[in-house]
Amino acid sequence: MNSVASEPRLIGLDWGTSSLRAFLIGGTGEVLDVVSAPQGIMHVEGRDFDAVFHRLVQPWLRGRVLPIIASGMITSRNGWRETPYIRVPSGAEELARNLVTHEASGGVRLWFVTGMTTERDGAPDVMRGEEAQIVGATGADMGDGVYVMPGTHSKWITVAGGRIEDYATYMTGEIFGALKSHTILGTLMTDGGFSSEGFHLGAEAGLSGGGELLHRLFNVRTLPLFGRIGPEMTADYLSGLLIGTEIGAAAGGLDGATITIVGRGDLAERYAMALALAGLKSRSAPENIVARGHFLIARAAGLVS
Amino acid sequence: MNSVASEPRLIGLDWGTSSLRAFLIGGTGEVLDVVSAPQGIMHVEGRDFDAVFHRLVQPWLRGRVLPIIASGMITSRNGWRETPYIRVPSGAEELARNLVTHEASGGVRLWFVTGMTTERDGAPDVMRGEEAQIVGATGADMGDGVYVMPGTHSKWITVAGGRIEDYATYMTGEIFGALKSHTILGTLMTDGGFSSEGFHLGAEAGLSGGGELLHRLFNVRTLPLFGRIGPEMTADYLSGLLIGTEIGAAAGGLDGATITIVGRGDLAERYAMALALAGLKSRSAPENIVARGHFLIARAAGLVS
Repeated sequence: MNSVASEPRLIGLDWGTSSLRAFLIGGTGEVLDVVSAPQGIMHVEGRDFDAVFHRLVQPWLRGRVLPIIASGMITSRNGWRETPYIRVPSGAEELARNLVTHEASGGVRLWFVTGMTTERDGAPDVMRGEEAQIVGATGADMGDGVYVMPGTHSKWITVAGGRIEDYATYMTGEIFGALKSHTILGTLMTDGGFSSEGFHLGAEAGLSGGGELLHRLFNVRTLPLFGRIGPEMTADYLSGLLIGTEIGAAAGGLDGATITIVGRGDLAERYAMALALAGLKSRSAPENIVARGHFLIARAAGLVS
Repeated sequence: MNSVASEPRLIGLDWGTSSLRAFLIGGTGEVLDVVSAPQGIMHVEGRDFDAVFHRLVQPWLRGRVLPIIASGMITSRNGWRETPYIRVPSGAEELARNLVTHEASGGVRLWFVTGMTTERDGAPDVMRGEEAQIVGATGADMGDGVYVMPGTHSKWITVAGGRIEDYATYMTGEIFGALKSHTILGTLMTDGGFSSEGFHLGAEAGLSGGGELLHRLFNVRTLPLFGRIGPEMTADYLSGLLIGTEIGAAAGGLDGATITIVGRGDLAERYAMALALAGLKSRSAPENIVARGHFLIARAAGLVS
């Protein structure tokens, strides 16, 4: 636990599919305390979201009343309360106007931040939770520009005039897992540390491959079969090939731009490497930007002053 | 069993990963009899290929000596006898010169047709078995041109001057299975008859999508989520999207060409539909072309006159 530096003003919940985090937030949007739990919406016994919620935030509510704001998959069909998407372009103001209020047990009131939808090439795209992170990032001096949020389903988000202008989802992470575990491509892979060489070769193939992904994936089998890459490089070659293909598609035409990477750790570093190979600059967004997003949305809604 | 119309001259074996077929072949390359068995190389108990072989062809060898030729994954690392690939461009002559002889039990001699390899964008590609089918198709009046062999791993093969000039593998079929069974995309699918509408919408998205496959796959989730396509259309939308993406990549620049489809049934029909959407003509290769391929290779090798 961090020491409490100022008076708590808000509780923010980032409640996703596989886990959730709760933030105790001060009067300038700073994080005073944070707790996390493994009860993402797919792991809540008996779908008793109310019980998980109370267990997590109760210690912060003793003797106090605080506004509570929640974002993420918790507002999806499989969550606590389904809320309608709002359309891009939207930012903190639009999200604030579309907060959905909900009364939990014990008379505790929550405000749900809804997700955002867009339309591209005749098909809709969806997100729930990322919009609060991006609102936080723009408030944390990251400003306008292009953001990438690596993950199971990567999001590429364009921010203009302080609002989310448009975005697109890429299923890169989930497809990596399915191909590695459930196709012939995994059979020639051996474990080991990160193979920078394998990743770079794959990323270069992906960046230049365009529509040839279904063919180039077969190289993940043939290259180790012919001894061109080692079995210990093969998983990272596949990772590079998919991330490179994603960047080639999502960042085409962004020559020389700086991409802001939201997230930390190994996956964020892979994106930074592949962005550099693509001739793009990158930087990292600060941690816990979702709490700042909750604060900015709550302030725009008049829940905190 | 077919009636025996002329004297048998050759036995041909098409021995793949999941099944095998044996052909009794006459003096003009015609099929006199055919038997099949489920003992593809991954399903041979104790890897006793010799026993499977004898059980299958013994009835044809009573009181006769016939040359026997075998092609397919049976010559791979996990098969009966691994043989080295030959390079494209190659045809019946080159395959005949590179036959690998093998003595089975009882003094019965086989000739293995080896596979072909090519190199593209710094990576090798491989096939074992398709080369004998294509040799057969060119001998069956299909001639030069572009062939597609739909399947788990589709092959696109260019024939020029009666030889296989080059080819590329697309993992479309295997990736369809992995995505349908092991990602979130399968969760919104319901069974039903073939949805032509779903397939066409998907194929159009694939044909126009180029490098955007990792993004467009997410539409397989969002379109039914928004009620834009029915759950019973969704699997066929995914099928169309992948096949359309494959054709867009493999047949780019072939405007107005006729593509020969090797194979029958539902999958071949899907390729014909998607090729038409791409503005290409298509036709079907005759059945059992692999037996004709065996005959032509055997004749080039002097095993039949």
